[in-house]
Amino acid sequence: MFDEVLRNVNERQPLVHCITNYVTVNDCANIVLACGGSPIMADASEEVEEIVALCTALVINLGTLNEPVIRAMIKAGKQANALGLPVILDPVGVGASKLRTDTVFNLLQEVDFSVIRGNISEIKTIYQGSGNTRGVDAAPEDRLDGENVRNIIASAGALAVKTGAVIAISGATDVVTDGQQTYIITNGHPMMSRITGTGCMLAAVIGAWCGANPGELLRATAGAVSALGLCGEVAWSRLEPTQSGTGSFGRYLIDAMSNMTVEVLRGGAKLELV
Amino acid sequence: MFDEVLRNVNERQPLVHCITNYVTVNDCANIVLACGGSPIMADASEEVEEIVALCTALVINLGTLNEPVIRAMIKAGKQANALGLPVILDPVGVGASKLRTDTVFNLLQEVDFSVIRGNISEIKTIYQGSGNTRGVDAAPEDRLDGENVRNIIASAGALAVKTGAVIAISGATDVVTDGQQTYIITNGHPMMSRITGTGCMLAAVIGAWCGANPGELLRATAGAVSALGLCGEVAWSRLEPTQSGTGSFGRYLIDAMSNMTVEVLRGGAKLELV
Amino acid sequence: MFDEVLRNVNERQPLVHCITNYVTVNDCANIVLACGGSPIMADASEEVEEIVALCTALVINLGTLNEPVIRAMIKAGKQANALGLPVILDPVGVGASKLRTDTVFNLLQEVDFSVIRGNISEIKTIYQGSGNTRGVDAAPEDRLDGENVRNIIASAGALAVKTGAVIAISGATDVVTDGQQTYIITNGHPMMSRITGTGCMLAAVIGAWCGANPGELLRATAGAVSALGLCGEVAWSRLEPTQSGTGSFGRYLIDAMSNMTVEVLRGGAKLELV
Repeated sequence: MFDEVLRNVNERQPLVHCITNYVTVNDCANIVLACGGSPIMADASEEVEEIVALCTALVINLGTLNEPVIRAMIKAGKQANALGLPVILDPVGVGASKLRTDTVFNLLQEVDFSVIRGNISEIKTIYQGSGNTRGVDAAPEDRLDGENVRNIIASAGALAVKTGAVIAISGATDVVTDGQQTYIITNGHPMMSRITGTGCMLAAVIGAWCGANPGELLRATAGAVSALGLCGEVAWSRLEPTQSGTGSFGRYLIDAMSNMTVEVLRGGAKLELV
Repeated sequence: MFDEVLRNVNERQPLVHCITNYVTVNDCANIVLACGGSPIMADASEEVEEIVALCTALVINLGTLNEPVIRAMIKAGKQANALGLPVILDPVGVGASKLRTDTVFNLLQEVDFSVIRGNISEIKTIYQGSGNTRGVDAAPEDRLDGENVRNIIASAGALAVKTGAVIAISGATDVVTDGQQTYIITNGHPMMSRITGTGCMLAAVIGAWCGANPGELLRATAGAVSALGLCGEVAWSRLEPTQSGTGSFGRYLIDAMSNMTVEVLRGGAKLELV
Repeated sequence: MFDEVLRNVNERQPLVHCITNYVTVNDCANIVLACGGSPIMADASEEVEEIVALCTALVINLGTLNEPVIRAMIKAGKQANALGLPVILDPVGVGASKLRTDTVFNLLQEVDFSVIRGNISEIKTIYQGSGNTRGVDAAPEDRLDGENVRNIIASAGALAVKTGAVIAISGATDVVTDGQQTYIITNGHPMMSRITGTGCMLAAVIGAWCGANPGELLRATAGAVSALGLCGEVAWSRLEPTQSGTGSFGRYLIDAMSNMTVEVLRGGAKLELV
């Protein structure tokens, strides 16, 4: 299902411009490289338009906001729109502060996003204009499981239609939809929520996959979600029972992405298209 | 001795707001997660009051200072004081520049800290108003060993009484005191000083432990110091003799924290209460 | 060939001030520590002159630029010049934006650099005033291999004479020259270009080696290049065939530096002096 989109990532070496937070930026750069892409992190207003023009995709991540960077995000986003490049939004912690919420709605007004990726609390905040965001992690009452998947799909689909973006919701079950077709993906491992940056890395990987597949945004996003989830499963399987933990897991996650092949993904992807 | 405080950390999942440096921020976030807590890194003045209000503890680390962040530190600290949350200060490199020294004394005037954690050079600088700070590492002449532990305890105790904060001094021997009771802790391994961020990670772990135990700040701080030191011992024991080094050690340190249990800590804590 | 310079690094524990980007700063700090040095990252204009005065070398890296940091770079560079300390420039992405190009030429006018380290695209941009910079990685057409090594050496030598700096070009083959003598170094492994930060780490290591050997800049730079390349070979040799990847490789690289000895380097250095 993802053979071609993955081959394109490997062959086209997408150059991904990330305007992202300083917490997980190193992991984001490394996972883009592990995908076969090339990352460039630049957030000065003076240069973002030139940097975007060199790239094949732009990822905007709100993890650590400040005024100069917000201005750079808007300039970069408009430039990417003008050039027809995929733009991915990761609205980290939207709902946790007025600054974050205002910034997200401002960005949504100024920039056309190709993909919006968040946890369920973040996506609900955007959909409803308010939510249960508990810091940067999903609120416990927002678990995405069997019971509420149907409601989530409906809301995500409506947000996709409204924004024109593919919506990717990360959780125990992942939902990726453009409002018409929806992938329900069950790859992943709970330890992914015990390291920082899996969400940010996913947004960066989506950037690489969409940059290499600009005509296939839904499939590229779903493939990226499935692939990173599968990397989490592979990473977990390598842990030694009593000694390895979250520190090693984080490196094994990147290891797994650097070893991802069409065959591995074909054998491990767990998803249905509804 | 730390059974209950550790259980509280695991059960209460403390949300820790860190205003910290961009050098070690990823390690700080990962070690808070490894503890069972949830980190949020946010340093924009516009949002820190709201972010603090979501959290159970605040950690202020001076690793990479600049003016906008100093303003955010003061706002966040005042808010945490107003809400009665534990506030931890890590005065990285105080004494190495006027900016750092002025910032620390300004913070001490504006904010009531619950815990101040530093190496001996940093704590001496605060106590004496000047010191031997050699960059961000303790000066060689400030070694905390058998000979001078008694003097250190007296100074730390006096600083604790003066500031109302628990004082935690990191070194080959760690001292944690509130001016009345003092823990002398000998967990740890010399390799901890050969990776960046063990001090910053310790401040973040203290944030998680104090956030989960706001009524037991001395014991929570001592428990965090002992636990991270024990993680250093566990990490060291996993290194392969000729090939592993400081890169693997850093990941194993986080691994060990993610596997820390009441039983492990009970078996490995090395301390005396004087 | 590098016995004495490496011994000096180990014995003198150089304190290296890095003004660097937030993407790879943690790796830079850890590799300086792995070398036996001590890193301090500080980029506030208000303090950089004091911090430089504590240090034995200064590394200026343009990875993530902004105006306040550019001012700090110039102040720090002038101070290091006044104190006679080695100053290393890593012109990350020069040519990719006007901001980066202008900043490099401004820095070259205001500060005397001891070493300039970059990939071939970056060094060509400085030499020619324009180039093929593709983001932060070398452009494919700029491969440094057998065919074009002679031309590269001539250009690098001319730039060395013009700037008074040792020029270090990183690639499959590395070239280090002061315009009179040239080291051609073939240590390294292709996986080094599949993790972020090897270039930045190399500049930091050069800072440590030059800080410990201020009278031997050419030899110290060549030794640092050879040593880090050898660490890449050692790291590669430790990967398990099917599972390990770029995540583990990055840690093994730091491991190898922390285990580097005169004997290991003597046995593994691959270079010729022309």
